[in-house]
Amino acid sequence: MTIECVAIIGLGLIGGSIGLAVQEMLPDIATTGWDADTEVRRRAAGRGLVGMVCETVAEAVGEADLVILCVPVGAMGHAAEAIAPHLKPGTIVSDVGSSKNSVGAALSAALPDAVIIPAHPVAGTEKSGPEAGFAELFRHRWCIVTPGNDAPQDAVDAVSGFWEGLGAKVEVMDADHHDLVLAVTSHIPHLIAYTIVGTASDLEDVTRGEVIKYSAGGFRDFTRIAASNPTMWRDVFLSNRDAVLEVLGRFTEDLSLLQRAIRNGDGDTLFDLFERTRTIRRSIIEEGQDDARPDFGRKDH
Amino acid sequence: MTIECVAIIGLGLIGGSIGLAVQEMLPDIATTGWDADTEVRRRAAGRGLVGMVCETVAEAVGEADLVILCVPVGAMGHAAEAIAPHLKPGTIVSDVGSSKNSVGAALSAALPDAVIIPAHPVAGTEKSGPEAGFAELFRHRWCIVTPGNDAPQDAVDAVSGFWEGLGAKVEVMDADHHDLVLAVTSHIPHLIAYTIVGTASDLEDVTRGEVIKYSAGGFRDFTRIAASNPTMWRDVFLSNRDAVLEVLGRFTEDLSLLQRAIRNGDGDTLFDLFERTRTIRRSIIEEGQDDARPDFGRKDH
Repeated sequence: MTIECVAIIGLGLIGGSIGLAVQEMLPDIATTGWDADTEVRRRAAGRGLVGMVCETVAEAVGEADLVILCVPVGAMGHAAEAIAPHLKPGTIVSDVGSSKNSVGAALSAALPDAVIIPAHPVAGTEKSGPEAGFAELFRHRWCIVTPGNDAPQDAVDAVSGFWEGLGAKVEVMDADHHDLVLAVTSHIPHLIAYTIVGTASDLEDVTRGEVIKYSAGGFRDFTRIAASNPTMWRDVFLSNRDAVLEVLGRFTEDLSLLQRAIRNGDGDTLFDLFERTRTIRRSIIEEGQDDARPDFGRKDH
Repeated sequence: MTIECVAIIGLGLIGGSIGLAVQEMLPDIATTGWDADTEVRRRAAGRGLVGMVCETVAEAVGEADLVILCVPVGAMGHAAEAIAPHLKPGTIVSDVGSSKNSVGAALSAALPDAVIIPAHPVAGTEKSGPEAGFAELFRHRWCIVTPGNDAPQDAVDAVSGFWEGLGAKVEVMDADHHDLVLAVTSHIPHLIAYTIVGTASDLEDVTRGEVIKYSAGGFRDFTRIAASNPTMWRDVFLSNRDAVLEVLGRFTEDLSLLQRAIRNGDGDTLFDLFERTRTIRRSIIEEGQDDARPDFGRKDH
């Protein structure tokens, strides 16, 4: 099946980046967009994030072959209800949420007759809002597609092909596995970063000014991800609760072991772990998911 | 007092960067260097990290007004013993260690008659070894100087002026306070990063390949600091034990609160923290310790 018109619901960092990327890389596909916030619609139109920013959700999705919901995970159900009455038969509904079990369930409940193909582009920055998007956000990044068991193969192929057209690499997996993998690679790192930044700002013997001044010692890398969109991340943790708590439990066990090693002066346990983690870094650079240069190769954006 | 000759003991990332920086920014100061590892001495000479790489520690420090020990914190005592018989009277001995109480004590024990002015340039990368250094490493970064109560002011000024000459901003504080501030801004972030990278690589239901593939979701920022020199970091945790355990205790309390909030579906607690941590990020960027651009401004190196 061919996608001729994509509707993007939610015009923040991810929605806006999809709109810009389609216009640049898949110019034969028409783009429409809508956002619940009038002010966001105005700014999105000003930046030309999509071909047409619509004033109503009905107008935005009425002609679409593919609707992509780019709203916080906790708002997916509402967004799906809002589009439900206005879809053409056969329209594919997808999303970009960071947890997939809960989103799949919400979309299925709101859209019992639609073709639902959930997806998650593993890409982002700490910025949010309609000014934050850029067309290259998905290039060389992975997009995970998590179709249900009864999803038609041609719809899975269409969504996969769409993301490949934006420069992403696509992997299909089941929603459960996605949620566990992302708990490890994304959700827990964010939770930990938020926590340590909060801990640091609450200390009474170290001023906030000192924390900021000396942040180049490691702390600043945590503040970057702890500056991500609060609504989006609140929803991620609530919606991927089981996998997050599972991985968090393992993390705190491992941290307790190191705490004990420090208390006991057990240098070998520390050294062995620190040596082992180096090899993972090397693999990430080899895989092209980060860059060994001091700027992490990010000047390409 | 005027520094005419600096000896650098240990020619890895920090020692090598000091040597390059002095030659570029303070060309009137002569530089000598020594490393316990013959192969490192050879590579340091090949890159010209210092004006003269010496074959013995005696030769390296014999004419120096300032000796800077750039070895892992756990090796500071041995390094101080090695230089002790060869110093001119009045030579200042300094270091670059990331914990200051234990280093101050080790230097005082090994060098009862020397002028000891410990220092800590808060700068680094995840690379190590003689190939890793570059002259701009300290530019616009802080260097914390932690003199003992009886340290002569002219020696404190000389060491401070030296670091300012390499482009650093200098702050003088007592060693106890340094160790607490750095536990927060550097040591705990590193410990957490090492832990989560280890946890991720031990999961049986998520392959290491998957962790690497999807690391762009947040994990990769942790792997960067978890690739730092294992010997250096083992020594930091063992030598700054009390402050590290104190801050770690607070971190795990805070993490337990969030864990509970996730378990109970308490979105407000999560949102409030996530909103608060954003403002700290903003301050770090305003203070010039990081950069809002996607490359973090790191292309300048």
